[in-house]
Amino acid sequence: MKGYAMLQIRKTGWIEKECPAYGPLDAIVKPIAVSPCTSDIHTVWEGAIGERHNMILGHEAVGEVVEVGSLVKDFKPGDKVIIPAITPDWGSLQAQGGYSMHSGGMLAGWKFSNFKDGVFGEYFHVNEADANMAILPDGVDPASATMLSDMVPTGFHGVELADVQFGDSVCVIGIGPVGLMSVAGAALRGASRLYAVGSRPNCINIAKEYGATDIINYREGDIVEQIMEKTHGKGVDRVIIAGGDNDTFAQAINILKPGGVIGNVNYLGEGDSIKIPRVEWGCGMGHKTIRGGLMPGGRLRMEKLVSLLETGRLDTSKLLTHKFNGFDKIEDALMLMKEKPKDLIKPVVII
Amino acid sequence: MKGYAMLQIRKTGWIEKECPAYGPLDAIVKPIAVSPCTSDIHTVWEGAIGERHNMILGHEAVGEVVEVGSLVKDFKPGDKVIIPAITPDWGSLQAQGGYSMHSGGMLAGWKFSNFKDGVFGEYFHVNEADANMAILPDGVDPASATMLSDMVPTGFHGVELADVQFGDSVCVIGIGPVGLMSVAGAALRGASRLYAVGSRPNCINIAKEYGATDIINYREGDIVEQIMEKTHGKGVDRVIIAGGDNDTFAQAINILKPGGVIGNVNYLGEGDSIKIPRVEWGCGMGHKTIRGGLMPGGRLRMEKLVSLLETGRLDTSKLLTHKFNGFDKIEDALMLMKEKPKDLIKPVVII
Amino acid sequence: MKGYAMLQIRKTGWIEKECPAYGPLDAIVKPIAVSPCTSDIHTVWEGAIGERHNMILGHEAVGEVVEVGSLVKDFKPGDKVIIPAITPDWGSLQAQGGYSMHSGGMLAGWKFSNFKDGVFGEYFHVNEADANMAILPDGVDPASATMLSDMVPTGFHGVELADVQFGDSVCVIGIGPVGLMSVAGAALRGASRLYAVGSRPNCINIAKEYGATDIINYREGDIVEQIMEKTHGKGVDRVIIAGGDNDTFAQAINILKPGGVIGNVNYLGEGDSIKIPRVEWGCGMGHKTIRGGLMPGGRLRMEKLVSLLETGRLDTSKLLTHKFNGFDKIEDALMLMKEKPKDLIKPVVII
Amino acid sequence: MKGYAMLQIRKTGWIEKECPAYGPLDAIVKPIAVSPCTSDIHTVWEGAIGERHNMILGHEAVGEVVEVGSLVKDFKPGDKVIIPAITPDWGSLQAQGGYSMHSGGMLAGWKFSNFKDGVFGEYFHVNEADANMAILPDGVDPASATMLSDMVPTGFHGVELADVQFGDSVCVIGIGPVGLMSVAGAALRGASRLYAVGSRPNCINIAKEYGATDIINYREGDIVEQIMEKTHGKGVDRVIIAGGDNDTFAQAINILKPGGVIGNVNYLGEGDSIKIPRVEWGCGMGHKTIRGGLMPGGRLRMEKLVSLLETGRLDTSKLLTHKFNGFDKIEDALMLMKEKPKDLIKPVVII
Repeated sequence: MKGYAMLQIRKTGWIEKECPAYGPLDAIVKPIAVSPCTSDIHTVWEGAIGERHNMILGHEAVGEVVEVGSLVKDFKPGDKVIIPAITPDWGSLQAQGGYSMHSGGMLAGWKFSNFKDGVFGEYFHVNEADANMAILPDGVDPASATMLSDMVPTGFHGVELADVQFGDSVCVIGIGPVGLMSVAGAALRGASRLYAVGSRPNCINIAKEYGATDIINYREGDIVEQIMEKTHGKGVDRVIIAGGDNDTFAQAINILKPGGVIGNVNYLGEGDSIKIPRVEWGCGMGHKTIRGGLMPGGRLRMEKLVSLLETGRLDTSKLLTHKFNGFDKIEDALMLMKEKPKDLIKPVVII
Repeated sequence: MKGYAMLQIRKTGWIEKECPAYGPLDAIVKPIAVSPCTSDIHTVWEGAIGERHNMILGHEAVGEVVEVGSLVKDFKPGDKVIIPAITPDWGSLQAQGGYSMHSGGMLAGWKFSNFKDGVFGEYFHVNEADANMAILPDGVDPASATMLSDMVPTGFHGVELADVQFGDSVCVIGIGPVGLMSVAGAALRGASRLYAVGSRPNCINIAKEYGATDIINYREGDIVEQIMEKTHGKGVDRVIIAGGDNDTFAQAINILKPGGVIGNVNYLGEGDSIKIPRVEWGCGMGHKTIRGGLMPGGRLRMEKLVSLLETGRLDTSKLLTHKFNGFDKIEDALMLMKEKPKDLIKPVVII
Repeated sequence: MKGYAMLQIRKTGWIEKECPAYGPLDAIVKPIAVSPCTSDIHTVWEGAIGERHNMILGHEAVGEVVEVGSLVKDFKPGDKVIIPAITPDWGSLQAQGGYSMHSGGMLAGWKFSNFKDGVFGEYFHVNEADANMAILPDGVDPASATMLSDMVPTGFHGVELADVQFGDSVCVIGIGPVGLMSVAGAALRGASRLYAVGSRPNCINIAKEYGATDIINYREGDIVEQIMEKTHGKGVDRVIIAGGDNDTFAQAINILKPGGVIGNVNYLGEGDSIKIPRVEWGCGMGHKTIRGGLMPGGRLRMEKLVSLLETGRLDTSKLLTHKFNGFDKIEDALMLMKEKPKDLIKPVVII
Repeated sequence: MKGYAMLQIRKTGWIEKECPAYGPLDAIVKPIAVSPCTSDIHTVWEGAIGERHNMILGHEAVGEVVEVGSLVKDFKPGDKVIIPAITPDWGSLQAQGGYSMHSGGMLAGWKFSNFKDGVFGEYFHVNEADANMAILPDGVDPASATMLSDMVPTGFHGVELADVQFGDSVCVIGIGPVGLMSVAGAALRGASRLYAVGSRPNCINIAKEYGATDIINYREGDIVEQIMEKTHGKGVDRVIIAGGDNDTFAQAINILKPGGVIGNVNYLGEGDSIKIPRVEWGCGMGHKTIRGGLMPGGRLRMEKLVSLLETGRLDTSKLLTHKFNGFDKIEDALMLMKEKPKDLIKPVVII
């Protein structure tokens, strides 16, 4: 079978591979719609997860079941399914402890385009199929549903980590596709004032549509000053970090009230350490909690999130600024993600 | 001063009283807008809280500060303020333990029209003014803001008790004004499928506007059967009880999944006990949690909720089906609440 | 193979059966030590879970692995293991949602001596072996470790459900073996005053050793009156129900402070419903939360609990009042459990 | 009246002052027993909270009520009381939000020897007396009870922040008096393996008595290596930081499992920032939560903690290595704290 792969760091291309083998709990799926992710770019061009050879890329997909293992009960060939980027080993100690995304080791619930071939192949493998796929309901657009693999659960997990409550003031730093889902998720959890930090006009417009009440443009001045001015020196109840870099945490601590929480869902790819400013962190005593975590994957998560699309609570189609048709357009879509033109939020490939 | 009072059980009327005295932490407020509550009706005509003599009624108000005690720091005469129905003693052991509404004893954070005169007087007393009033922001309609005293925090507390999460299926039983706020609150917490149980056409229409996806009309059949059919026998993740009677809990247990939660905010005025069906409750082992509680009051709650009006996340004006003008119309408004015509949700009196 | 079975309701006996088959994730284990449980008695003589024919009884065991399926990674024949009474399907939607004990349906994580043969056979089957067994560490007494299958996790889950905090006053109703583990668990979670309700002298003595500060003997008067007197009318912060019947909940509500929690781990085998007294429950508004649930099982739970034995935090040997030697003594041990002599807490059979 | 004061940074001495004034909610108390704290030393000799002139030191005391304000209901002159180091303004927005220690601003619930005179005077002032003092029960030793003002609630708060669960492995870094109370608190919350990091022989012995199972001596090698070796490379479930410096956090992140929590209760007095190692923090995705906070004060906390002394769950007398008699010995006790001889844990002065 054919797949679009990372050949080595900084090099991609089409390759031929054997169809993946599968065990009694697994499934083989062929993609219906896929979307490249910024982390595919980091993986290839920044070597974020280290060297990989001839590894098929991609971890955001809706597909059709082709084969199922002998112990799979709830799915059969022909079923249309949503596949999350994170497909845990559900029996692992970590999953039993509530952290399935770290099943088998920190971050190890992330398998596609990390430990095994991703979804940019003619076929791909899903481990523990009954537990890691969800039926795509009739009437849900497959392209919109690809956003449930990673963008929605990651952005929403920022909201969960930050523990947004009714009427909280919230700042979302970064309004790429994940940050936009944090904006939408914060609005959907009852945030009142919602400060979105970004600069690209297209993202700003969509952030407002998703519920941002105030845009903080970092090109127009220090974001800490801007937010402290807008909040009359009080700061905000919650901060969600969905962009920026290691220094973003210092800004987040500065604008956060005591008792507040930072929820980070930005993958920090470089640098030695994140610095927490001592005084503003209350000399260790300020109850400014710092959390960060990989999205929860699995079937239940997908079922819950797709029910938000079905009921119209969430419209992910606004993220899909660029659409391609045909399996062989995966390359173009990925390259677009690499170039990141100003008006791009997410490309999607309908196969 | 003049006030509209419960003279005794089953009898109301206008009375003359001394202006209330106030201590160093307290304030005296005159009403700008008030709204009668079903519990005023229960208090008078069902004797729900026992006998009371010449007690001024009412606990939902927006007002103007007239006097403040010597230790009040954040408010001054002339300030326009929102006053919650529940005004706790914040230093009490219960408040320190996180249950301010029970300060001084179970339910004892409820003072207006219970232990002291309510807000249907020319003036009324607010204990711990700095802690129990919030500024009415410019641009927020006082009539809409009266819904923050009780309807919104009570309805939303049902959502908090039931612990609604992203994508949960939720059933709200009862769609009077509190139940409608539970519907709005559940939608605002990320519920997906939202079943609203009620029958009055006006309430049904507004429930849909607030986010109900399915209406369950108890006049058209057993609600348990209807919901189990709609959920393909699975039941729902959360139930909010905002109406009905003691028997409603058995229905709620029946439709609830293991691991689910019931959040009750319906005041149960009669009967000896609530019956929990043994087998459907998993013989005591089903992890179907039953919670019920009085709304949290106080200033912070009011500030957070009014920020939802300011940012347009919540529109309480839909509840205000009947408007009156003038202090002396309080009687008419209360009587309307007593008669409860089909199209009534809430009356409000602008003074 | 031989096994001691429920032949039908009210009838038990030794039977011959095929050795259990096993799938790729499963294991076959032979018992080293087993303990009968009161629920075996309920199952047989009260028909608590309905009719069963020739079902091998027992769900508390330490054993030795005999065979493992092809996908089992962490265990091999010869390993000595602890097996929990509850062995979930970890990929199920319920487990993904945090309620593994209800995997596949309410209470359906309970498989031994319920849906399949139990541990009173020469061999027994463990589903998802990697996820549902834990190594018995060197130096831990197998007889003591049998208490980790059900008594400890059930008793401790009562403490978790009741959410005991530092310095809380706690009442444990029922001081059979599960209740004694609730007493020990509450002390180990930081309870201060710990009221234990029971009457049997042996249980009372052991309750005191496990940390009870006050014994409430229901034979000496109403327990509500006794506790309210001892707490100067204030009641307690938490109640754990580990015995009694449906009427015990009314007592629990009566002695509970607003903001308190009831954690039930008593299997309620009879009656239509549990009655919650309306007024004492704050008319639905008192924030007296009612929780009840089956113990969490699985490997992680067993590993955490056995570490408490290893470090000497918990001594389960006090529960083992009666010891038997030899597989064929299972019948005697079960009959002893049925007769329940005054000095019995738990029998154990060393095989 | 006389008091022992910080005259200016690096200078202390006895001064004469007016007796403190008090408002209607306040009380005046004279000390029965007091204990100097390391933070008194930091305040004076390191200028940790900035310059102060003629400020009476001390914030750990048991005392006798001398005067009460007109609105104080629950205390009267002659009552013996425990006074917490943190005495919040309970009506503040922060207290309403669950963070009373930050009432009025980050850390501002700490008033004694910070914003006002401390407890090393003949008399001292307690704000909101009904809410910020607790009766010293008959039979509780006043010297032991002084440990409830700060050492116990701070050490225990580390346990609460780290959210220790049954059977968790826990590392407590720092075994001065606060760290020892974290050790005791972790054992009392159900920790199994409990690694205590320290080097002073006296502290090590007492750590073991309080429940440490393993001592990690940083003089004998890198603590990360030692703990990773002892845990077979797995790390621990929870880390409580009660000593060390800004670099301690990197060690804590290194030894923490994904899904784990750090609870910091060490006041960080110097340096610009705390550094979180990026890779070991899972590139921001590892669910290694970092929390830190000032102890909760107030009456309820004191009542709950003293109940642990009354019931014998906790014995604070082991901390009291040096006892002095007489008000004028406060100076000697403070100087001892400054010199910190090897065998010192805490000095106490009985007045």
